[in-house]
Amino acid sequence: MRLSRYFLPVLKETPREAQIVSHRLMLQAGMIKQASAGIYSWLPLGYKVLKRIEQIVHEEQARAGHMAMLMPTIQSADLWRESGRYDAYGEEMLRIKDRHDREMLFTPTAEELITDIFRAHVSSYKDLPLTMYQIQWKFRDEVRPRFGVMRGREFYMKDGYNFDLTKEDALHAYNRHLVSYLRTYERMGLQAIPMRADSGPIGGDDTHEFLVLADTGESEVFYDSEITDLKFGDRQIDYDDHAACAAVLAEFTSRYARTDETHDEALFAQVPAERQRTARGIEVGQIFYFGTKYSESMGATVQGPDGKSVPVHMGSHGIGVSRLLGAIIEASHDDKGIIWPEGVTPFHCGIVNLKQGDDEADAACLALYNGLQALGLDPLYDDRNERAGAKFGTMDLIGLPWRITVGPRGLKNGVVELTSRRTGESEELPPEEAIARIAAVYSQIA
Amino acid sequence: MRLSRYFLPVLKETPREAQIVSHRLMLQAGMIKQASAGIYSWLPLGYKVLKRIEQIVHEEQARAGHMAMLMPTIQSADLWRESGRYDAYGEEMLRIKDRHDREMLFTPTAEELITDIFRAHVSSYKDLPLTMYQIQWKFRDEVRPRFGVMRGREFYMKDGYNFDLTKEDALHAYNRHLVSYLRTYERMGLQAIPMRADSGPIGGDDTHEFLVLADTGESEVFYDSEITDLKFGDRQIDYDDHAACAAVLAEFTSRYARTDETHDEALFAQVPAERQRTARGIEVGQIFYFGTKYSESMGATVQGPDGKSVPVHMGSHGIGVSRLLGAIIEASHDDKGIIWPEGVTPFHCGIVNLKQGDDEADAACLALYNGLQALGLDPLYDDRNERAGAKFGTMDLIGLPWRITVGPRGLKNGVVELTSRRTGESEELPPEEAIARIAAVYSQIA
Repeated sequence: MRLSRYFLPVLKETPREAQIVSHRLMLQAGMIKQASAGIYSWLPLGYKVLKRIEQIVHEEQARAGHMAMLMPTIQSADLWRESGRYDAYGEEMLRIKDRHDREMLFTPTAEELITDIFRAHVSSYKDLPLTMYQIQWKFRDEVRPRFGVMRGREFYMKDGYNFDLTKEDALHAYNRHLVSYLRTYERMGLQAIPMRADSGPIGGDDTHEFLVLADTGESEVFYDSEITDLKFGDRQIDYDDHAACAAVLAEFTSRYARTDETHDEALFAQVPAERQRTARGIEVGQIFYFGTKYSESMGATVQGPDGKSVPVHMGSHGIGVSRLLGAIIEASHDDKGIIWPEGVTPFHCGIVNLKQGDDEADAACLALYNGLQALGLDPLYDDRNERAGAKFGTMDLIGLPWRITVGPRGLKNGVVELTSRRTGESEELPPEEAIARIAAVYSQIA
Repeated sequence: MRLSRYFLPVLKETPREAQIVSHRLMLQAGMIKQASAGIYSWLPLGYKVLKRIEQIVHEEQARAGHMAMLMPTIQSADLWRESGRYDAYGEEMLRIKDRHDREMLFTPTAEELITDIFRAHVSSYKDLPLTMYQIQWKFRDEVRPRFGVMRGREFYMKDGYNFDLTKEDALHAYNRHLVSYLRTYERMGLQAIPMRADSGPIGGDDTHEFLVLADTGESEVFYDSEITDLKFGDRQIDYDDHAACAAVLAEFTSRYARTDETHDEALFAQVPAERQRTARGIEVGQIFYFGTKYSESMGATVQGPDGKSVPVHMGSHGIGVSRLLGAIIEASHDDKGIIWPEGVTPFHCGIVNLKQGDDEADAACLALYNGLQALGLDPLYDDRNERAGAKFGTMDLIGLPWRITVGPRGLKNGVVELTSRRTGESEELPPEEAIARIAAVYSQIA
């Protein structure tokens, strides 16, 4: 994309409504614009990052054998009365009456509707196990929305649901989701720590939240510092292997790690004092096993191998897709702006032309631009008639991980400058080597 | 995907609520399930087709230089009061009050919000031309929703908006959209004819609808039969070339083609009698130029080259993404089921194992399955323990364009059977040739 043709409304002033850095940077970088309280439009740059994050979630869900589908945003209140949650949910549910005065709602989660689909179509244990998920807009009518997309009212969420014959199978689905989520977050450049959590209105006993450590997190967290040394990395795992998935869960939950909701001082005291840590964390996902809570109230049963009808065991599993943009920025920025991890960056690299209109510089930039595109990369070329300082400022603010700077002086020596946004380190090298270096970086994370 | 692991709830009975064939087939093929009146869940097979259609729209919008973004589904009534449409829109608008009693609505279209984004960020003619679009869920509270996804209440739509300095530039944007839409529909295997239309609540004088001819269409259409001979085909076009885009518009609108809303008997009578056609059509898109209707009422102005402030010229352009599934099926089916065009098929081909459990047949199917996947193709392998008739019935119903049938008898001679869903023609050939043939078909449409 050429910046002269791109809609990138960078703000010069610091937006006053932003209380945290990710909200401020997303507004300043022209990624989002508030439409109403807690409701945002995603401008082209923000939309690109949202889609990159969504794509990683889809790829990792497919790898785990989960099927994508989609449920509507507007649902009938009737189903929610069956589970008992219509009255229990409170004012955060956006309740709506249609033109025929039927009670509807904007879905905050979809346990009821997926259970309704299941009971209509599945009647035998032979069709199990089954896990389906969607990535869809949700609404939660927060009384005081704040922190931009981190605590918005309309938000984009992955929600998945597993149906299993036995508790043991459903706990495998729980473990499989934990493994899959570890991979998912690491691909986004995040360390998200599974912490024992409280189940809230979803229900159930077994639940873990995934938390990203950041000073601006809404939760106070307590953990054994050893847990931050754990990485899932590039291990290969067979998602059908119960023991292998259970071993990952054991490994990642064997150290103390809890939020203030479940914190236990006595247990925490058993962690060696030098490893006790207190910090703040941002919740980016949660997994639940809730047994037969919905299948019993809604009659979602299957015929088992012995011919008897039994309610299925279920769980649900969420990733806050839109909120992740905020979480990533909270975890990865400096005083100049955002620093995107390579896995989610909106453009793979920026090209800055120091002397727009100079034939040689223009030609060199265009060659870089075309060369990167020919390798399947997506560069942003700043071809505006602006001074160098303004171009660098924009690139630093929007946070592309790599920048190639092209100027007449370097071109005389046959070199351009390749700069890492994260380290700030620059290196002079021939244009074709700069292209090869960037291609190599991204081929490692594909 | 192996069918034994896939969630494909094919219905044995004919669903009584379906009045038209596309609705019936989408229910029978397990693509959708009604959640409430006019509101559907997209089961895995339906979701896959929806995503293939969405992807084609995205690719063709990018080709035309339009930028993707996303606006929220829930919007404040205030903006719609500025344009005067809040009161004018009537009961089809789903009106909502949030917990603070603020008036909100589920957006049926987004002229107001995009104009608000524009006026907040763009102030100079130098930032024009600008076209942005989104593919987002919309809601229209139909009094009697029917025909499945063809006339649902919650529907998925591409809506794009252009901002230009002059009427001439805005009419170029109009023409560019017409060209882009012709390409888009043809990639989906559809002939969609641009017809002069009525602007309705969007406003403006210049507007064309795109109609697919089908007996179940909601509109009566009148046209010169010569128009059905026109194809956009694989012409290369420079979307910045005003004259080239205008020539395509002239070519595709020079023959008489109108819906009942704009039909003119006197003009139609001038078409040679043997070329006069009356038929029914399904609307799958519409383009509008409406000048300064929204920019004047909402104060969306830019400073022109002469320093004077002028309201921008605008248009909006829609494609009914979810409705297109219905339209494609109406235009492409037989009495056995759906016949997907290659451009939008959920799986590239089906593999039917005639003797599941036979070592040689199982191994041959697996080799085909892996061989197709290795070429980037997405096959559906029917590995269920079902008799051949049931497997053929499912494949015909869900409409994959190609089927490979594997049985012990053929394998003895080293061959499998390749069958075209559209023609019903079969051919025996070695497995590796079947793979190559299917790969060749899809490489032509990529």
